[in-house]
Formats: sequence, C-alpha cells, structure tokens
Amino acid sequence: MPDEVLNDISHRRYNPLTGSWLLVSPHRTKRPWQGAQETPSKNTLPSYDPKCYLCPGNKRAQGDSNPPYKSTFAFVNDYSAVKETQQDYHPETNKDDVASLLLQARPVTGRCYVLTFSAKHDATLADMTPEEIVPVINTWTRIYASHLSPSHPLNSQAAYVLSTIPENPDGEVTPPKHQLKNMQIFENKGAAMGCSNPHPHCQIWTTSTLPEEPGKELVNMRKYKSDTGRHLLGDYVKLELEKKERLVWENDSFVVVCPWWALWPFEVLIISKRHVRALVDLDDKERLEFAQAVQEVARRYDNLFETNFPYSSGIHQAPLDCTEEEAETSWFHMHFYPPLLRSATVKKFLVGYELMAEPQRDITPEQAAAKLRDCGGELYRKSLQ
Amino acid sequence: MPDEVLNDISHRRYNPLTGSWLLVSPHRTKRPWQGAQETPSKNTLPSYDPKCYLCPGNKRAQGDSNPPYKSTFAFVNDYSAVKETQQDYHPETNKDDVASLLLQARPVTGRCYVLTFSAKHDATLADMTPEEIVPVINTWTRIYASHLSPSHPLNSQAAYVLSTIPENPDGEVTPPKHQLKNMQIFENKGAAMGCSNPHPHCQIWTTSTLPEEPGKELVNMRKYKSDTGRHLLGDYVKLELEKKERLVWENDSFVVVCPWWALWPFEVLIISKRHVRALVDLDDKERLEFAQAVQEVARRYDNLFETNFPYSSGIHQAPLDCTEEEAETSWFHMHFYPPLLRSATVKKFLVGYELMAEPQRDITPEQAAAKLRDCGGELYRKSLQ
Ligand SMILES: O=P(O)(O)O[C@H]1O[C@H](CO)[C@@H](O)[C@H](O)[C@H]1O
Ligand SMILES: O=P(O)(O)O[C@H]1O[C@H](CO)[C@@H](O)[C@H](O)[C@H]1O
Repeated sequence: MPDEVLNDISHRRYNPLTGSWLLVSPHRTKRPWQGAQETPSKNTLPSYDPKCYLCPGNKRAQGDSNPPYKSTFAFVNDYSAVKETQQDYHPETNKDDVASLLLQARPVTGRCYVLTFSAKHDATLADMTPEEIVPVINTWTRIYASHLSPSHPLNSQAAYVLSTIPENPDGEVTPPKHQLKNMQIFENKGAAMGCSNPHPHCQIWTTSTLPEEPGKELVNMRKYKSDTGRHLLGDYVKLELEKKERLVWENDSFVVVCPWWALWPFEVLIISKRHVRALVDLDDKERLEFAQAVQEVARRYDNLFETNFPYSSGIHQAPLDCTEEEAETSWFHMHFYPPLLRSATVKKFLVGYELMAEPQRDITPEQAAAKLRDCGGELYRKSLQ
Repeated sequence: MPDEVLNDISHRRYNPLTGSWLLVSPHRTKRPWQGAQETPSKNTLPSYDPKCYLCPGNKRAQGDSNPPYKSTFAFVNDYSAVKETQQDYHPETNKDDVASLLLQARPVTGRCYVLTFSAKHDATLADMTPEEIVPVINTWTRIYASHLSPSHPLNSQAAYVLSTIPENPDGEVTPPKHQLKNMQIFENKGAAMGCSNPHPHCQIWTTSTLPEEPGKELVNMRKYKSDTGRHLLGDYVKLELEKKERLVWENDSFVVVCPWWALWPFEVLIISKRHVRALVDLDDKERLEFAQAVQEVARRYDNLFETNFPYSSGIHQAPLDCTEEEAETSWFHMHFYPPLLRSATVKKFLVGYELMAEPQRDITPEQAAAKLRDCGGELYRKSLQ
C-alpha cells in the first residue's frame, strides 16, 4: 500500500517504462472550471452509413470498394503517413559540421493499415462481446505473424498461428517486399481523440524504424533485466496483484491496472501475467481472455461517465525485426490513454506546464482504479435501448 | 538548405534539445477530414467582465480581491498544483526491494502564480503593442530575480534589475521561505489549449524539483557544449540566419524560427542571438526587443487563419537554484506550441501513434515558416473594428 500521505500531497512519480517523472497534484480537482467543455457524444449513429468509407460494400476515397465483410476487414490506408517506396534520401552525416549535428533527418518507409472492428457502423468495443472481439485479435495476430522478418526468433510461433487461426474470408493483407522494423497497432476513439470516422476501427502503422516510445521501453526493460535478472513488467504484475489498490480487473491471463505512473486521469494498462513477447505467443484461450480484458476496459470506461468514452489505445510487443535478446526483453501490454477527467464533458488538458515542464495529473491512479473497479456490470446504454 | 527531397518523403527529424526523434509526413495533409472541428473563437468579449476573477477590482474564488490594477498583476494561484507546506513524505528507497524500484515517488513543494497581461478582459498579446508588453516582461524579470537562490551565479544581474526595473505599483509577490529549484513561466491561450479564463494571463509554477523538459534540455545542451566547445542554441541561431528557410522574423536581439524539429504544425521558437542565460541578463533594449518578438509571433498567429489563435507558450532559462556551470549552459528561449493545422477549425491531434509510438507532423517546418513570414502586417481584426 502506498503511503496514505500521497493522497493529499504534491509529489512526483517515476515511470520505469519510459524513465521519466510526472507531477501528481491530488488536491487540485477542487478548482472551478470555466474552460472548454466537450459535447457528450450520444450514440445516434445508424448501423450502416452509405457515406462511411469503412462500412461494408462502400467506396473509399481513392476509388477502391470494401467487400461486403461480416466482422473485421483490413486494408492499406489510402492516406498513409509513411510510404512503401519513395525517392532515396542520403543525409550527410559529417560529425564536425554544425548542420549535420543540428539538422538531422533520416528517411522512413513503411505501410499503414486500417482495420475495422465490426461491420456495424454504430458498434464500439464496449458494445461487442469478447467473442465478437476475438476476430479482431486474430487479425492483429495474423498480420503481425505475416510481417515478421525471416530470421525472427518468434517465427515458429508465427507459423503455428498462421496455420491454426483461420484466414479472414473477406481477404487478408500481405506484407510489403521490404522487411520493416516495427508494427504499431493503435486505436483513436472519439472526436476528442482526433478520430475522423466513428466506424469502429484501429490503425496499424508499420515502419522501417523503431519509434521513440517502444524504443524507450525496450531500453528500460533491458536495463531492469540486466540489473535484477527479472522482467520489469513481470515484477510489476506481481506487485499489483499483491497491493490490489491499483488493480481494476483480472482473469487467468491478464491484469488491468491504473499504473502507478499513470498520466491520463483514467489511464489503464493491460498486462499479460505470464511472459508473452508478442501476439503470436498467445494461445486460443489467451486470445479470448485478452478480448475479455479489452471489453472490460471499454465497457467500464463507457459506464464511468455514462458516455461513449474517448481514448487512444496501443499495443507494445516485440518489434517485427529483432534479435533474440530484444524479443526476450519484450513483455506484451496494451496502453489506454483517455482524456476525460471529471465527467463526460470535462477533460484533462495536457498543455502549458505539461508540455513545457513536466506531465501533471490531478486525481491519483489509486482513486481512478477505485472508480473503475466500481463500474463493471452491464453497459449503461443497454438498459436505455 | 535542406534537401528538396524532404518536402515529399516521410522522414524522421532529430530534436537536439530533447534528444528525441519525430516523424514528418509532408504528403499527408491531402487526406479528407471528417473529424472534430474547432469552433472559431470570435472576440466578442467585453473589456471588463464583472464575473471574471482576473479583472481589476473583482473578487477571486477564495475571497481575495484584485486591486484596481492598470497593466499587469501577479498573485498566488488559489488552486496551486504544488503547495508550499505539506505533510512530510520520506519514501523508502531500498534498491533491492521491488516496490522501491517500481513504485517510486518524491515529494514536490512549490508555489504557483497567476499573472495578468492587461487590465482589459478582451486584450491578447496580439492586440497589445510591444510597449504594453514590456511591463509583463519586467514583472517576469522581477519575479525571477527575487526568487533566485542566495548563491546563484546570476545574483549581481538580479540585484541590478531589481534596482532599475520599477516595482509594480499594484503590489509585488515575495518569494517563499524555502528556496525553490525551478520557475516555469507559461501561457495557455484559448479553450483548445485548456485555458479556463479568456482574460489574458500566464502562469508561473515554481517547484522544489527541476522538471523533465528543462532537465532534458540542460543535459543535451551540456553534452553539445562538452563535445564541441560551443553552445547548441548559439550554433543553431547562426545556422538558421544563414539558411533563412525556417526564419520567420528577427530583430537585433532575437530570432523567431520554426525549428527544424518542430512538432506542432506552426510551432515557433524565439531564441536570443547572444548568450542570454536568463531574463535578468536582458538589458532595457533587449526587453523591448523581446516584447517585439512575442508580439510578432502572437500577431502573425492570429493573422494566419484570421482567428484568435490558441497555443501554449513557455520560457526556458537557468534554474532558480543552480551551479555556475548550469547557468553557463542555459540559453534563453521561448517555445510556442499551437495546435491548429489547416484553418481556424481544423487542429492537429497528437493522439494514438503520437502517444504510443512517435510524435508525427504533417506539413514541414519550412512550409510553416514560409506561411508565417507572409502574414506580418496589421492585425487582421483591426480593420474589422
Ligand atoms: O491552471 P488552469 O489554467 O486552470 O489549467 C490549465 O493549465 C494547467 C497547466 O498547464 C493544466 O494542468 C490544466 O489541465 C489546464 O486546464
Ligand atoms: O489517421 P486519422 O485517424 O485520420 O488521424 C488521427 O490519427 C493519427 C495517428 O495517431 C494522427 O496523426 C492524426 O492527427 C489524427 O487525427
């Protein structure tokens, strides 16, 4: 149990995954609020929208048509942030030249996918059952498996899942010719989190470089392992199961916690209990239990403020191209960063001080976990329908 | 001149101040936008609002009253994120104990100020003249000077400015008894940047710890200095004055650039041309020229999309309590992080990929600088009045 005193004093907490500190001001939610209020998002969407470029059978911006798919469907983003082929760029890197030091650039190639969660325009992960979420996880797993490098330490696991998880009947994506380094699966949910289409979907960006965040996490997990001989997230899961005060939910395979170092008001982390390096390590039962964990988070979020709760979520796991040691260091987990703080309409802004000095949060992660523990049960809008 | 090829390819750029990379996708603004649109903020505010807790003469939330001040006025925030005195907290730090490694916390004390820029409720820095902004800079300087540690290397400069810059006739803040480590001056402008009151004001948070961002900058500036024998921002200013493509504006003492590593669409950096370690190093002429630079940025921002442009800004300079070497390493600069991307209503969201993987921007800093160079001239709303 953390010292009770932390509920009433300003303090910093350390994030061991990123190696950085954040400021916690538990007493601060008492201040009055005259700023922006979010419009609560009512779910008044049709289950099929003829203008939506993600609905089954519809035409997309660049002319392709979606098949009449039944559950999930993946395709290459028509407006990818990275391109597979582009003009060559070879920056000069002369260590004595000021421009080489201060104007550094490197080319990045890659491919971005969009993956729908459901054929229904008005569904969200909170409305879906774990069994309906399993096909999403299966597709993530197949895409990850098919994009691994030829020498990847998880190749036999990949071969196994590719031969046991059925192909998507509506078509599958095949990997690009050039081997890529990393795959980032993420969802932006809700207009408050920059989502430009309410049709339930996530994105998958694969890149020739290892991005900053998973890179930092690997460095810190590696350091912990070489210092202690144990896994950072393995130790952390045990600790949270003992302490219980930041625990939101668990099943056999996963825990859901508001991490000690949570920055966003109701930030949660889904962590595998055993050492899972990537999606391809999960067996059938674990994929279902992962779907349950994701559903629990999504439903509890919606129940918390009785709203369609916005968030960004993302999975961290072993890179697509990595050494045995890097794969061994990786520990499968999923982050959820939701902006809402006090109600469906008041969000936490990470602005001035947070950007210029240090991330700052108001309520403690322990207070957030207590609230999320209390709002399981049926999805609030079920009884409204 | 950076290779023209960077205008059309995806690439990463390195931020030498923070030591991290970001992803640039110049081709990406072509995608359609169906997401959230900001409401353009019209300036229909009264110049005095009887309900505003910042207007002269009004009562504040906790009962204190503002004096009938004429230009700027500073007071201790009624809802500070950090407190001056609080219960003691002594975390256990046993290196072999898992909880000491993974549940790390440290107490933080401090004091937060609010500082109004103008007595007028409806003014902004863009509406004010440089001469009207000078009192704001004078107040920043006096507060910084009066909060320095007794052994601070800039103490003689501080004594000089305290004896030459006139006191604020409406009252001044005095430093807390316990010496603090750092002072962060920042402004959140506009509801989109979490500002809860449109009355023009900034905040000043002083803390017993050095926050993450200035801490990282000091580490990277120190490393550059020990590697090259020169100042990182000194070299950078020279480079940008030569290249000119990211230069927005300059006067004798300051440059305004869209930095090579800008993350926010129209991010700018004001940097002193000579080695200024902190506000107290500026002389009368330089304080006026700093006011000009701030006014240029604010006015060009408003002119860009003909709107009351939101941003967070913040000053980085030598800490309140630091060694000779740390003061020598510091180089005065001011960051502006504005969220708008395409118009008064479409902003850039730093969400899923940005939070989970790596910050990503769409237009290049060179394109942003060209637009900001072109929108000097009179404030667009002057001719509307
Ligand atoms: O103190 P204010 O203006 O009410 O609050 C604003 O600035 C603070 C410092 O950046 C943030 O922590 C808050 O989220 C934001 O709404
Ligand atoms: O690709 P989308 O959903 O149109 O765009 C959204 O997610 C991207 C990845 O996090 C961000 O770069 C965009 O700012 C955001 O609006």
